[in-house]
Amino acid sequence: METLNNINKERLFHTLSKSSEIGAIPGKGLKRLALSDEDKEMRDIFKGWCQEAGLTLRVDDFGNMYGRREGKKALPPVVLGSHLDTQPEGGRFDGILGVLLALEVVNTLNDHNMETDRPVEIVNFTNEEGARFEPPMLGSGGVAGVFDQEYVYSRKDREGHSFLEEMQRIGYKGEEENRLGDFHSFLELHIEQGPVLEEENKQIGIVEGIQGISWMGVTITGEADHAGPTPMHLRKDALMAAAEIMHNMEKKIANTEVTVTVGKISASPDTVNCVPGEVYFTVDIRSTDDQLREGAVEQARALISEVCHERQVDVETAELWETEKIDFGKGIIDAIEKSVETLGYSSRRMVSGAGHDAKYINNIGPTAMIFLPSVNGKSHVPSELTLDEDIISGANVLYQTVLALAEE
Amino acid sequence: METLNNINKERLFHTLSKSSEIGAIPGKGLKRLALSDEDKEMRDIFKGWCQEAGLTLRVDDFGNMYGRREGKKALPPVVLGSHLDTQPEGGRFDGILGVLLALEVVNTLNDHNMETDRPVEIVNFTNEEGARFEPPMLGSGGVAGVFDQEYVYSRKDREGHSFLEEMQRIGYKGEEENRLGDFHSFLELHIEQGPVLEEENKQIGIVEGIQGISWMGVTITGEADHAGPTPMHLRKDALMAAAEIMHNMEKKIANTEVTVTVGKISASPDTVNCVPGEVYFTVDIRSTDDQLREGAVEQARALISEVCHERQVDVETAELWETEKIDFGKGIIDAIEKSVETLGYSSRRMVSGAGHDAKYINNIGPTAMIFLPSVNGKSHVPSELTLDEDIISGANVLYQTVLALAEE
Repeated sequence: METLNNINKERLFHTLSKSSEIGAIPGKGLKRLALSDEDKEMRDIFKGWCQEAGLTLRVDDFGNMYGRREGKKALPPVVLGSHLDTQPEGGRFDGILGVLLALEVVNTLNDHNMETDRPVEIVNFTNEEGARFEPPMLGSGGVAGVFDQEYVYSRKDREGHSFLEEMQRIGYKGEEENRLGDFHSFLELHIEQGPVLEEENKQIGIVEGIQGISWMGVTITGEADHAGPTPMHLRKDALMAAAEIMHNMEKKIANTEVTVTVGKISASPDTVNCVPGEVYFTVDIRSTDDQLREGAVEQARALISEVCHERQVDVETAELWETEKIDFGKGIIDAIEKSVETLGYSSRRMVSGAGHDAKYINNIGPTAMIFLPSVNGKSHVPSELTLDEDIISGANVLYQTVLALAEE
Repeated sequence: METLNNINKERLFHTLSKSSEIGAIPGKGLKRLALSDEDKEMRDIFKGWCQEAGLTLRVDDFGNMYGRREGKKALPPVVLGSHLDTQPEGGRFDGILGVLLALEVVNTLNDHNMETDRPVEIVNFTNEEGARFEPPMLGSGGVAGVFDQEYVYSRKDREGHSFLEEMQRIGYKGEEENRLGDFHSFLELHIEQGPVLEEENKQIGIVEGIQGISWMGVTITGEADHAGPTPMHLRKDALMAAAEIMHNMEKKIANTEVTVTVGKISASPDTVNCVPGEVYFTVDIRSTDDQLREGAVEQARALISEVCHERQVDVETAELWETEKIDFGKGIIDAIEKSVETLGYSSRRMVSGAGHDAKYINNIGPTAMIFLPSVNGKSHVPSELTLDEDIISGANVLYQTVLALAEE
């Protein structure tokens, strides 16, 4: 390993600052939903950067973009990247750092005329957030065989536009033959999105795996009534049923090892003086222990049934998404740790609470992640922040780890 | 009183059936929001019917429409009517019956060449529902002096269109001098919107007054966080705070004399994997006893403060609307009761749980209401239904009562 700390900070912060303009919203946030006009604009810029770096660009049938730098040998590549899309009121860092720092790594290889044994590929996966098209990680899930093409293509946003239509509209429908092929290792750098690294004053998180996640959609159908003349005991109020369920999920099911989140809710007819006849809400349950998570899902189902039965309202629960806890590749975790030690950064091993593209890519080859601290643990908000010095540390760790893996 | 049961059923059901086409939605419902294109279409048809009936039409500065039939003497008129607008997923009857049965009354007077001592005016009030422009009853509240013109004109719908703009756009901005003048009595026929008449098998409700109503808007501001990496104890989840409040309002504040309804709710950022940082919901509290209602509002405020303080989230409550319990005019109530007895219908006296135009008109002259049964107590839903036989009974009671009042 002949170079340390050789990334070009000026170039790195230029790309990050340019990205922060595309889809900017008040409070320094971004709204860059997957396959939107803003996503297209960012993709076009990223494509230009890849071309300037001399990478061979290809786009697959899920809109995933790959930039390849050849190696000395015809070996499977080292792959690194993440996603450039954001939540509707998201931040500037999230998965974006993972893509732009990957770009910085190949630019640094170029700066030093480094020839690696293995090719290096950088990647931008489509619709990681799941904010526009549910479920999340459709691009990485597609190439990993978790979702088939028809399923991914038919996902619809709230306005009824499909993934396929929107991918074609912005001109990023590529070929199936361009999908991620055999690879030596996949590395995803990402912000932590939680408070742990900051609290413990660590520069780098070495991520050993990802929590299991279960998503449910719950539709309660009671009876819409005028708020005035309908006595309480004759009501079938869908929202009061939902309130009882939400409150008891928080009190009785969530704990230090299991999180429960109701992120979306809507009531119909949604006027001040009508008892809501229908309510829809989502439930997100996570744990690093699959048995605890599955137990919590069972408890939630039982609670929902019990409350709705007692109140004589109808209920339907749909399983929207489920992934088990996963363990990353030991060899890559060790390689990250070795780079961190070489560079003299503080670090800790940890399990991610959030889903990431690395989760699905881990299904098809050795994978691990690098986390950078999130100020106040915040993410998916405009105030999301990772400090410049931590970004530089992350870029160096990524560069050193790629150098090591590319010679294996 | 020389005629009984003389209304023309065929004509009456023709007007009702025509009205049921304007803004029709699936399930036999109507979406005819105040000052919308559908409202304009219905107003144009109603105007034509008034002209066919030989009425002198005028429109005031709130878009309220009046059709006048002169009397033998220059005395203050007997006025009857209600509103032609509906909820977004409303029914075909609601206030519509009150306007169309008023039209049928003047047509029946014409059929029999009846000359009344007093003039008879029929009226369609603007934006009774409050579904498009809040608060409700803007047209009747305007003429009654409850709201001033500037306030009414500046009310905005969810898209930001103002009452004034929309009234001008559909061509129904009239003159201030056309407002309802001195009147002898105001009669509003309406569906009950509750289960009482049907349960007790009564044909006619003689309405002595209206419950007091308080509306609040509650905005809870916590912190938006990623659902995965944020432990439960570090969250400031605005929706879980709202759920605790809603559930406890139902358990501890609502009772047989006080209703509590949360009709509207929204969460932000509203994605499956984000802890909601902000929630808005409305609270509607009603009682026939003003002291109980005011006590319940105080309890609700205290509960909201307590829960939000404990959870360290910010909260703002806004008083959106409040009206005290009101008592209708004894003379008109007695006149309705006498007509019901003459016609041999079953009836009961009752207090309305819902607000109506009659509530505000009662401020400026003697007023009362006639209720007709609602099948299953339903209203503000497409399945809202009042049976043909009950509509005919209602028309006859209205006709007999107008005949009596117009000779006083």
